[in-house]
Amino acid sequence: MNEADRLEKQMNFCRELDTEKFIKRMTYLHDGIRRENDAEHAWHMAVMAIVLSEYSNEPIDLLKTLKMILMHDVVEIDAGDTYAYDEKGKETQAEREKAAAERLYGLLPDKQGDEYRSLFEEFEAGETAEARFARTMDNMQPLMLQGMTNGKAWEENGVKLSQVLKRNERSKLGAEKLWEYTYENIIKKGVANGKLIDDVNDRFN
Amino acid sequence: MNEADRLEKQMNFCRELDTEKFIKRMTYLHDGIRRENDAEHAWHMAVMAIVLSEYSNEPIDLLKTLKMILMHDVVEIDAGDTYAYDEKGKETQAEREKAAAERLYGLLPDKQGDEYRSLFEEFEAGETAEARFARTMDNMQPLMLQGMTNGKAWEENGVKLSQVLKRNERSKLGAEKLWEYTYENIIKKGVANGKLIDDVNDRFN
Repeated sequence: MNEADRLEKQMNFCRELDTEKFIKRMTYLHDGIRRENDAEHAWHMAVMAIVLSEYSNEPIDLLKTLKMILMHDVVEIDAGDTYAYDEKGKETQAEREKAAAERLYGLLPDKQGDEYRSLFEEFEAGETAEARFARTMDNMQPLMLQGMTNGKAWEENGVKLSQVLKRNERSKLGAEKLWEYTYENIIKKGVANGKLIDDVNDRFN
Repeated sequence: MNEADRLEKQMNFCRELDTEKFIKRMTYLHDGIRRENDAEHAWHMAVMAIVLSEYSNEPIDLLKTLKMILMHDVVEIDAGDTYAYDEKGKETQAEREKAAAERLYGLLPDKQGDEYRSLFEEFEAGETAEARFARTMDNMQPLMLQGMTNGKAWEENGVKLSQVLKRNERSKLGAEKLWEYTYENIIKKGVANGKLIDDVNDRFN
């Protein structure tokens, strides 16, 4: 491939990224009115990863972690956002995202596309130190927004404590102290305020 | 400072970041309807920096570059966005942003706040390889969106070619090939389509 073709492919990918700003998530921003989009979410969790990296349980390569975080939702340009507690959507999520990864990373020069697709797969698998920490950020950032909006999206969707705990069962593997903070300051408060349905109340006894 | 106070300060900073999603820029997204916000802009240019880093004129520390890019607009939470071609706003920009940096980075534990403020100052000064490349991304990303919306924000604001060239006089110092691409494919086209006022037409003779 000549230089001009290579750059044109890369620019096509960069232009395509703009669509990520239109993929809406369920979480509300702190105003409690507007819902967050994927680009905002990725940016917020990237800065959080920088600020909070000292809490990773294991040493991490922060650059690799940031690449994962910044690009982990690119597939949603085609596959859409699947809400954390949408059990039906989650059945087809892996398949939809695989096809999306194929097309989107396929826009790039081969070797570069392969690198990013493999980072995406590593993030999804969650089995390296970087992926564990990135996934903790991915879960913690919307929980922080739930805390800032007094659990508005939890309430609207009738979310149960057991669902939040299941979703976060590996969060402590990435950063135990951050999970404790989130559990004590956000999740417990959500239950106390009745925004999160307490279906595992023995947990608090 | 004990551990709990340290984490609380860091979390306060992370919560404050949410406001960056409400700072509107002049540039339109590719739909030509919604304007971009600072968080979306920072995310987009961060991914572009990853994808396009091979075009930096000089070798760069990509992690440092990403830290700069992801946080360079945090000051606008207090200082607001100053449009690239708002000459009046630019008179007070430095002062407003200095006060903002003081308050916002001041939310963090001292050493961490100092590190990020110093990265912000390095970005502003534009005198290191990382700052030069980051600033090229900062200029190139909105130009790419202008190209995708056929110069809508240029037209609305009566922007002149001389202004774009002045704004970008150092873009080639970060990444010559990317500046050439932008000039050939976006700026020239903007002039040809009459979206950008050609007040330096001898440039094209």
